[in-house]
Amino acid sequence: MAKEITSRNEDYSQWYIDIVKKAELADNSPVRGCMVIRPNGYALWENMRDQLDRMFKETGHVNAYFPLFIPKSFLSKEAAHVEGFAKECAVVTHYRLKNDPNGGGVIVDPEAKLEEELIIRPTSETVIWNTYRDWISSYRDLPLLINQWANVVRWEMRTRLFLRTAEFLWQEGHTAHATSQEAVEETLKILDIYTKFAEEWMAMPVIIDARWKSFAGWHFALLGQNFAKAFDVTFSNETNQQEYVWATSWGVSTRLIGGLIMTHSDDEGLVLPPKLAPTQVVIVPIPKPNEVISEAAEKIMRALRAKGITVKYDMDLKNRPGFKFAEHEMRGIPVRIGIGERDLANNQIEVARRDTKEKMSVSVDGIADYIENLLTDIQQNLFNRALAYRESHTTKVDTFEEFQEVLDGKGGFVLAHWDGTGETEDKIKELTKATIRCIPLNNELEDGKCILTGKPSKQRVLFARAY
Amino acid sequence: MAKEITSRNEDYSQWYIDIVKKAELADNSPVRGCMVIRPNGYALWENMRDQLDRMFKETGHVNAYFPLFIPKSFLSKEAAHVEGFAKECAVVTHYRLKNDPNGGGVIVDPEAKLEEELIIRPTSETVIWNTYRDWISSYRDLPLLINQWANVVRWEMRTRLFLRTAEFLWQEGHTAHATSQEAVEETLKILDIYTKFAEEWMAMPVIIDARWKSFAGWHFALLGQNFAKAFDVTFSNETNQQEYVWATSWGVSTRLIGGLIMTHSDDEGLVLPPKLAPTQVVIVPIPKPNEVISEAAEKIMRALRAKGITVKYDMDLKNRPGFKFAEHEMRGIPVRIGIGERDLANNQIEVARRDTKEKMSVSVDGIADYIENLLTDIQQNLFNRALAYRESHTTKVDTFEEFQEVLDGKGGFVLAHWDGTGETEDKIKELTKATIRCIPLNNELEDGKCILTGKPSKQRVLFARAY
Repeated sequence: MAKEITSRNEDYSQWYIDIVKKAELADNSPVRGCMVIRPNGYALWENMRDQLDRMFKETGHVNAYFPLFIPKSFLSKEAAHVEGFAKECAVVTHYRLKNDPNGGGVIVDPEAKLEEELIIRPTSETVIWNTYRDWISSYRDLPLLINQWANVVRWEMRTRLFLRTAEFLWQEGHTAHATSQEAVEETLKILDIYTKFAEEWMAMPVIIDARWKSFAGWHFALLGQNFAKAFDVTFSNETNQQEYVWATSWGVSTRLIGGLIMTHSDDEGLVLPPKLAPTQVVIVPIPKPNEVISEAAEKIMRALRAKGITVKYDMDLKNRPGFKFAEHEMRGIPVRIGIGERDLANNQIEVARRDTKEKMSVSVDGIADYIENLLTDIQQNLFNRALAYRESHTTKVDTFEEFQEVLDGKGGFVLAHWDGTGETEDKIKELTKATIRCIPLNNELEDGKCILTGKPSKQRVLFARAY
Repeated sequence: MAKEITSRNEDYSQWYIDIVKKAELADNSPVRGCMVIRPNGYALWENMRDQLDRMFKETGHVNAYFPLFIPKSFLSKEAAHVEGFAKECAVVTHYRLKNDPNGGGVIVDPEAKLEEELIIRPTSETVIWNTYRDWISSYRDLPLLINQWANVVRWEMRTRLFLRTAEFLWQEGHTAHATSQEAVEETLKILDIYTKFAEEWMAMPVIIDARWKSFAGWHFALLGQNFAKAFDVTFSNETNQQEYVWATSWGVSTRLIGGLIMTHSDDEGLVLPPKLAPTQVVIVPIPKPNEVISEAAEKIMRALRAKGITVKYDMDLKNRPGFKFAEHEMRGIPVRIGIGERDLANNQIEVARRDTKEKMSVSVDGIADYIENLLTDIQQNLFNRALAYRESHTTKVDTFEEFQEVLDGKGGFVLAHWDGTGETEDKIKELTKATIRCIPLNNELEDGKCILTGKPSKQRVLFARAY
């Protein structure tokens, strides 16, 4: 099975698709651009969702649910919104089918035309702010810290499973505050949650853009009063004056799964951080289940489950251990335990870790503690590996010549001084096709000179070419 | 606040709407027939969903996610499906908006017309079975025990919050089996889960219809091979012969929340079973928070939370205790604790239960155990009360005369013998407007005579008039 995967060096894009399909994470659907998220992929999403949801709730957020449909007129209200992503979207124009009088199955009933077309939400921002108008009247109604887990649709022309699909699942937080200061604090709080989730759960090191645009598939809208103004959402403050409400909005989607796959996986298939893996340990009987092996497996499973570790016993009788090993590696199960009778007679079992593919002979005594530590170790190793990868693909340069050399040669990210003007940013893009990808939040300050203009600069920023 | 609710006897329908709106469970939305589920209502749905999800997973089911859109042609494939609910549905015909050249905001781009219209799923049955064709080829791929949590749309003309809305949230299980026997076993397993959930969590006594049509908002499709035939889903059995797959399908929706409200609530507002209440206990300082009271509240909260009980402390300074009491009653919080300084000096607090509105003076010592038992007691009392209500509204009759008398007078359900034929059922309907609502599964057998024809009957069935 494993050999069916295209190697990453040979064809990155095909390697990615092979993993998604062969690890049974997702499939294409009969509707162009929409995917079927298979049980393996959905269990992964559930783990991500549940953890984020816990973090949102611990910081005072609550969930709600707003309608799938947006009246078309709402999209005209917020000008920046119209100019943004709102154009390519699914439009509902009719509300009934009927039997084709000519016997051609069902047809759209032309008499059931809607007076105003409805848009399938590309985001719920407009309908939520339209609702907030009714919910907010006084400073005592604020802050409103609401999140929604939902499906949204953006009619993308080129789609790729998880990374860009017409329909995707996401959470969208839309909070309302009395002051801009509170909105800034809310945004920092969410950035903190996202960073923690990325690093501690997804094992992905992140650099937050101080401009809060986005990072690695995390969407941030700029905070402000534009939606409050578009939907006339005001509140009376403590001195009884009407003010517009301040907004924040933030979201992550099933696109994160694409990032997770690309960060950790290899030519044998999916690699998952143990904290998100739906199955953390699989036990394979060698060469097949029998009473002695199954009894040992049951005992180990009980001990692991008592520690909250998820474990499965592969009792399939049809396939040989080698085939099973490849299959479980393909699916990214972090730890495999092989139990054979001969080893067992010596109180030993074989433990293999997915990340490094090392195999260890381990005593059955204290196996649960051993596996628990191993899972922590794998989680940390994946983070370290991703961090090392990023660092090895980031080069500090001090001159424009070096800058060009790195872009044309080694590639990756380039850390360089920049004078802070849009003009220089544009000029650099024109000359090199590289753009500023991130001005790191909490960046280390360092005096330097802009690589292009030589003007003074206080910090390095991250450049890269679009790939 | 409480006095704003219409009394149930005066106007049942308005009483229901008042509770939904004033307990802040849901609101109407700008899109006709769609609702906004507010944080209080959504937290209730989350508790219901999470518990059902645990029960599904414990019995071997997994979750997946299928597309929102269904190609129109799919709906022509399964004839019964077309004749059923599939006609009134939202139809997507276009995929792009554009700026109105005449400055009228955004308009639908006439050039972006889909070749084949897409239907917003009224159920995912067709797209799921279309997918199963690719996933199932051998008996080793079966059973497939898949569930989906999703939003669906049915273009209802008359809608009521939760009970009937154009968009609603639900779970839909679609399982595939090698034999009809396995499909029957699956159905019985799910009926068992639904019954347990209704009785132990929702505190609603249920009678399952042996015909599995539906009960109290639970949807069951008849199991069979019709979808497998429509979408050509076959498998090779152990002797290598191709057979059609057997299906089951089952679902519950946000409509359950409507049933929950109607079963337990009263003229003071919502009443919730403790096992589903998002907040189980609220602490109200009397008359307002101070250091002594807040310290006692904190201590009680820690003790309750250690037992997994959810508790909130109402620190609002603006409103008086009486107002707060009414508000928390309106929202259905099962237990209220009042803490006043004078009581506290005697090591006492006041505990009020929402279901009976009894107030008890209770010692602070061992309060956590006391509250834990009280919550169990309330849960059981709500079930008993609902059961007693149903029994008092169900009358056994032995003659057709009695049958008519009860229908015209007391009303409710009538338990009567019936000869088992559709002909008699139709005739009874014609004469009395009453129909068979349920042939109870595992019904007590009893020899008797059909109330209409006098022919022998083995069991009583439940009749009622549509209301």
